[in-house]
Amino acid sequence: MENPHADRVKDIANLASRRGRAKKNQFLVEGPQAVREALKFHLDERPILDAVYITEAAFDRHEDIVDLLEAAHGTPTPEQGRKVFMRMVTEEVLDSMAESVTPQGIIAVSFKLDITEADIFGADAINPRLIAVLTRVQDPGNAGTILRVADAAGADLVLTTKGSVDLYNPKTVRSTVGSIFHVPILQGIDLEEFAEDAKAQGIGVLAADGYGNVSLDDLADAAVAQRLGIELERKPKFDLAQRTMWLFGNEAQGLTREEKAVAQAKVAVPVHGSAESLNVSTAAAICLYASARAINSGSAHE
Amino acid sequence: MENPHADRVKDIANLASRRGRAKKNQFLVEGPQAVREALKFHLDERPILDAVYITEAAFDRHEDIVDLLEAAHGTPTPEQGRKVFMRMVTEEVLDSMAESVTPQGIIAVSFKLDITEADIFGADAINPRLIAVLTRVQDPGNAGTILRVADAAGADLVLTTKGSVDLYNPKTVRSTVGSIFHVPILQGIDLEEFAEDAKAQGIGVLAADGYGNVSLDDLADAAVAQRLGIELERKPKFDLAQRTMWLFGNEAQGLTREEKAVAQAKVAVPVHGSAESLNVSTAAAICLYASARAINSGSAHE
Repeated sequence: MENPHADRVKDIANLASRRGRAKKNQFLVEGPQAVREALKFHLDERPILDAVYITEAAFDRHEDIVDLLEAAHGTPTPEQGRKVFMRMVTEEVLDSMAESVTPQGIIAVSFKLDITEADIFGADAINPRLIAVLTRVQDPGNAGTILRVADAAGADLVLTTKGSVDLYNPKTVRSTVGSIFHVPILQGIDLEEFAEDAKAQGIGVLAADGYGNVSLDDLADAAVAQRLGIELERKPKFDLAQRTMWLFGNEAQGLTREEKAVAQAKVAVPVHGSAESLNVSTAAAICLYASARAINSGSAHE
Repeated sequence: MENPHADRVKDIANLASRRGRAKKNQFLVEGPQAVREALKFHLDERPILDAVYITEAAFDRHEDIVDLLEAAHGTPTPEQGRKVFMRMVTEEVLDSMAESVTPQGIIAVSFKLDITEADIFGADAINPRLIAVLTRVQDPGNAGTILRVADAAGADLVLTTKGSVDLYNPKTVRSTVGSIFHVPILQGIDLEEFAEDAKAQGIGVLAADGYGNVSLDDLADAAVAQRLGIELERKPKFDLAQRTMWLFGNEAQGLTREEKAVAQAKVAVPVHGSAESLNVSTAAAICLYASARAINSGSAHE
């Protein structure tokens, strides 16, 4: 493919917009790292890819991706009767498709990955232990960074509420560095309803809140003490080793009073220096890692 | 000021480049949050500001900043015989000065803040307890995020090695959200030499390394056990409660073998899910907070 003005190229470029993605139920995956994870998901989990476009230079550079492309060649897309479309393209065509200014020679078009509420609780469902909820998080980079750290912390579900940035925003997908293919996601939940369902399943709900009256340090200490078999004088307000759903709020406003009311505790990451606050993705990293540590305590000192 | 082509406007716009900043020994501070911290530093710590430019709209919006501007009016700059220059400017002029596309109506020009090596160790010096070293960190946003979380974790020194992004890059300054005025910084150190000086002062050196053979969890657990007065069977490889200097590496390559050789332990933040790695600023957040928790253990449960 050499014509950057072809209809197919324009269709792909349109995936940079929310409307374009809604129309096609697809999103853009840019760069070797993310495309590699997309191909693995397509081959190992379920058909998800619609197309892959690669430049000759990238084809020569990434042997492992070429192997994955060969494996994916001729496999079906999620749309009945269609097979994954693969094409060598010029740099110019690739640049016209991409949202990134540096797509690094390879782009995939993937169908959206959202699971449904029915996949979350019940027999043969995820029954998640650790959930991260993006509660009107607005910045695409923050959203992607939270999804990536949720993956690293072993979270098994990432949700967004209505009014959050779209996780399929190309900037978000890029900043997940492939993690969007590792963690089940569901977007646009009704927070109150979902939290009720989660609580009914025995999942505790925590609000990450800079002004919270519970210190994350105290919860983490209590979890370690419990693991070491020590009785603490004060019972902690929440057992970090239990199944947990964390709420992370909007960058400027944090969580609203209504959103916080859904949680069993408002938890603050202590600020030691003179910084006013933590970036939401930094706070999420510290909170999710504290939970991961407590939840995985059975396998401590592995 | 209404002429966006005035020489003064061009001089300020030139601070977006490393060369422009080197020539003037100044840097650009954009937006109300950062300018507020710059004004406080100038008033409470030492003269640092050269000029402040504000639009009428921002002047009307930020009463607290207007109070600070009044307090700073007529105060000297670090250059002998000169006073801080303050001007109301049009939106157009402000946009021409700014690097950000949304400078939010206010910009300051600050002199660089670097301390010298002589300020670090010795009588009347900082004698830092917790140091973050950006070791060839390249991305301005990452650098700023690390500086911000270092501030929040109570680090009292942030260093960069030669080959790192300039902390005065406008993107970096913006992502510190004012923290650049809270933590002493020194740029372009020779890592090996500095680490030797630090060790001579009893400071331990840790390399944050995804492939490291020491788990941060084990160090953190040991620190809690020590605080709770518990004897562990295995002595930890490093006491997190001691004075510590953390090395954080380049985004793509991590730390080189030579850089790691400077450290007493190579410490990995465990990755629980299928994420390949953590972003360097996320890893820095988790490492620095683990240290902060151990170092501040004396004041636990405050």
